Amino acid sequence: MSEVIEKAKKAKVAKEELVHQPTEKKNEALSFIAEALRFKQDEILAENEKDIVRGKEKGFSPALLDRLVLTPERLNDMADAVMLLIKLEDPVGETLETIHKDNGLFIENVRVPLGVVGMIYEARPNVTVDAATLCLKTGNAVILRGSSSAINSNKALVRVIREALERSALPQDAVQLIEDTSRETAKQLFTLNDGLDALIPRGGKNLIDMVVRESTVPVLETGAGNCHIFIDESAKPDMAEQVVINAKTQRPSVCNAIETVLIHNDWAEEHTKALLQKLEEEGVEIRGDEAVCTMLPSAVPARETDWETEFLAPVVSIKTVAGIDEAIRHIRQYGTRHSEAILTENQENARFFLTSVDAAAVYHNASTRFTDGFEFGYGAEIGISTQKLHARGPMGLKALTSSKYIIKGNGQIRV
Amino acid sequence: MSEVIEKAKKAKVAKEELVHQPTEKKNEALSFIAEALRFKQDEILAENEKDIVRGKEKGFSPALLDRLVLTPERLNDMADAVMLLIKLEDPVGETLETIHKDNGLFIENVRVPLGVVGMIYEARPNVTVDAATLCLKTGNAVILRGSSSAINSNKALVRVIREALERSALPQDAVQLIEDTSRETAKQLFTLNDGLDALIPRGGKNLIDMVVRESTVPVLETGAGNCHIFIDESAKPDMAEQVVINAKTQRPSVCNAIETVLIHNDWAEEHTKALLQKLEEEGVEIRGDEAVCTMLPSAVPARETDWETEFLAPVVSIKTVAGIDEAIRHIRQYGTRHSEAILTENQENARFFLTSVDAAAVYHNASTRFTDGFEFGYGAEIGISTQKLHARGPMGLKALTSSKYIIKGNGQIRV
Repeated sequence: MSEVIEKAKKAKVAKEELVHQPTEKKNEALSFIAEALRFKQDEILAENEKDIVRGKEKGFSPALLDRLVLTPERLNDMADAVMLLIKLEDPVGETLETIHKDNGLFIENVRVPLGVVGMIYEARPNVTVDAATLCLKTGNAVILRGSSSAINSNKALVRVIREALERSALPQDAVQLIEDTSRETAKQLFTLNDGLDALIPRGGKNLIDMVVRESTVPVLETGAGNCHIFIDESAKPDMAEQVVINAKTQRPSVCNAIETVLIHNDWAEEHTKALLQKLEEEGVEIRGDEAVCTMLPSAVPARETDWETEFLAPVVSIKTVAGIDEAIRHIRQYGTRHSEAILTENQENARFFLTSVDAAAVYHNASTRFTDGFEFGYGAEIGISTQKLHARGPMGLKALTSSKYIIKGNGQIRV
Repeated sequence: MSEVIEKAKKAKVAKEELVHQPTEKKNEALSFIAEALRFKQDEILAENEKDIVRGKEKGFSPALLDRLVLTPERLNDMADAVMLLIKLEDPVGETLETIHKDNGLFIENVRVPLGVVGMIYEARPNVTVDAATLCLKTGNAVILRGSSSAINSNKALVRVIREALERSALPQDAVQLIEDTSRETAKQLFTLNDGLDALIPRGGKNLIDMVVRESTVPVLETGAGNCHIFIDESAKPDMAEQVVINAKTQRPSVCNAIETVLIHNDWAEEHTKALLQKLEEEGVEIRGDEAVCTMLPSAVPARETDWETEFLAPVVSIKTVAGIDEAIRHIRQYGTRHSEAILTENQENARFFLTSVDAAAVYHNASTRFTDGFEFGYGAEIGISTQKLHARGPMGLKALTSSKYIIKGNGQIRV
C-alpha cells in the first residue's frame, strides 16, 4: 500500500474518534504540544539545520532560507501561538439553527469537524504546526504534505506533535505527515475523494493553480493578492500618501500588500507628484503609464504584465484613470478578488466602489494590509480565501468546520 | 467565439449590474416571470410537445417521459412557486458579523451574490425555472445547460423568462441557456473558472461524478442518497414498521428514501418477521442477508452490490447486525452521507449514533424523508448537498450566496 493510502486510512480512523472528543481533551492535547515544542527544541533545531545546510548547498535565496530556518525564539513563538489557540472558542458543537416543526420534529443544525483535512504547502515549517494544531482544535484529522526543502524539519515537528498526542486522549493518527515529497504523492492527494474532506493549498501561485486544476477533492483556495488602491478625485492627499505607502511598503512580501495604484486624472497633479516622489524615497520602483512617466521621468514605463503581476516586492505599477468606472474596470480585469481599496471623500463613490468591486475585502479610506485573521480578531488563520464558496477572506477556526442536521422525533413519517 | 464563451461574457456583465439591484426590483422581475409562465402556456406547451414526441420516438421510459412533460397545471405550479419565492427573505445584504476595531476601523461581513452560477442538469424542464428564479432572487446570473431531451422546452421557458426580464429592471442577460447540448459545451463549463463562480450539477450519479471529477470550477455537489435505517434492540415495533414503510415506500424514487435497513440481532424475531411481511405486502422486493432469507424464504439473497446501490425503486436490502457498532461501520462503508436514521429507545445509543454517523442529516426516531428544503421550512431548494464545504444538506437561498468584508476607515494604516 502506498504511503498516502496507508496514512489516509489511519487518518480516517482517527477522525471517527475525534468527533467524540470534548473541547477540554482537545485543549489538553494542544497544551502537551506547546510543552513539547519548548522541551524538544534541540531535537527540532538539529533536524532543521540539515534542511538549512542542504538549502545552502542548493543555492536557496536568503529570503527562502529565512522562511525555512527555525530558531529557539521561533519555536517559542509557535508554542505561544498554540497556547493562544487553547483560549479560542471551540466552534464545534455550536448550534447554527433550530427548527421546531408542527409535527413535533426538532431539527438542529450544528457545527461539526470537516473530517480529514489535507494540507499541501511549501517551505515554511511553521505551517506544519499551525495546520496540525488548528485542525486538532476543530476536531479534524490532518494529512500534511510539505515540501522536500523542509522535510527534516517537518518530520521532527510531526514526531514531536505525535509524541505529545500519545500522552493525550486524542488519537496519535490525527496528525499524518507524508514523508515522500515526490510529485506523485501530491497527485495522489488531489484525487483522494474517499479519504479527504477538503484540501488546502498554501504557497505560491503555481502550487495553488495546480491544486485547483488537478484536484477532484473540494479545495479551499487560499489565493494570490494582486491588490489595488484607487485614489479618487476627492481623496485627501495626506491620507492617500500614508495609506499607499503603508499598503505598499510596510511588508511588501505578503498577499494583502498592494501592487497597483490607480489615480483619478483630476486628483491634483501636485499631489500625484508628491506621492510618486515619496514612493521613490521609500525605495519603491515605479512602473507607470504615460502620464506618470511624464510627471516622474525616473519611472519605468509599465508593460501589460505589470498590471497582472503580484510583485511581492518594493515595486508598484501606477495608472491614471478617467474616473471610478475605469478604476473598477481595471480592478475587474486584473484583480485577484483579494483586497481592494478606494480613497475618497465622496460617499456615493465609496458606496458604489464597495458594492461593485467583487473581492474578499473592500476598503474605504484604509490600508489593504488589514486583511488578516489576527487583525480581524479571529485569533488564528488557516489562510485567506479568494474563492467564494464556504469561506471568503481570512479563514479562522470556523472555516475548518462543516455542519450537520440532527433531527429528533418520536416516530414522525412524511405524509 | 463559442456559444459558451459568448454567453459567459454576457452573464458576467449582467452579474455586475445585478449586485446593485434592490430586493424590490428582483421581486418585481420574479412577478413578471410568474405572469409570463401563465400567459404564455400555449407557446411553452407546443415546444414541450416536440420534446415529448421525440422522446417517444427514442423509446424513453414512461418515468422519463413523465419527468419531461409539462401541463397547464405544472406550469401553474411553477408560477405559484415563483410567487412564493417573492415572499422569501432576500439573504443578500444580510450582515453576518460586525467588528469594531480600537483603531476606529469598522469591519462588516455581508452576504453577497455568488456571481455567475452554472447549472448542469438532466431532463426535467422545471429545473430551468427553479434555477433561474432562485438565482435571480439571490442576485446571481445563471448559465443553464440542460439536456438535449428537454431542449425545446428549455428554449421556450428561457425565452419566456428573458422576455419577462426585458420588462424589469434586471438585465436580460442574467439568464443564459446553452442551446448546444453536446458533451463539448458541458466540458467547457467545467473549466470556465474565469466565468463561473460555482457550478451545480443536478441529476443522476453519473452526471454528478463526472462534474466532480472534471470540473476545476468550484462545485456544489448535490449527491445521491444511499440512506439507511438502523433498528436498534430497543426500537418500538410499531414505530419501526411505520417509519421503515414510510421511508421506503412513500416515494421510492427520491434521494432521501432509504435503500437499506439494518436490524439489531436482538430485536425480537417476531418484529423482524412482521416488518418483512409488511414490506412485501407493500410491494417491496427484499434482498436480505442469510438471517433475513431464513425468516422470509421469498427474499432474494443480497449480493455485495445490493448494499451499494441506490435503488430508487421499491427494492430494499436488509441486513442483521450484532449491534450499533456494526451498524455504524456498515453505514460508513456504504452510505453516501445523505440521510441516516436510528430507531431506538436507548438515549445513549441515539446520542452515539447521531455523533458518529457522518451525514448531512442524522435522525433519531423519524423517517429520513424529511431531508428537504421545503420540509425544513426554507421555502425553496436548489438541491441537497452531500459535500461538507459551503453548504450541507438541503440548500435554500443562502447556499446561493457568498460573503464579503466591507471595511470603513478614516486613513488607518497597519503598524
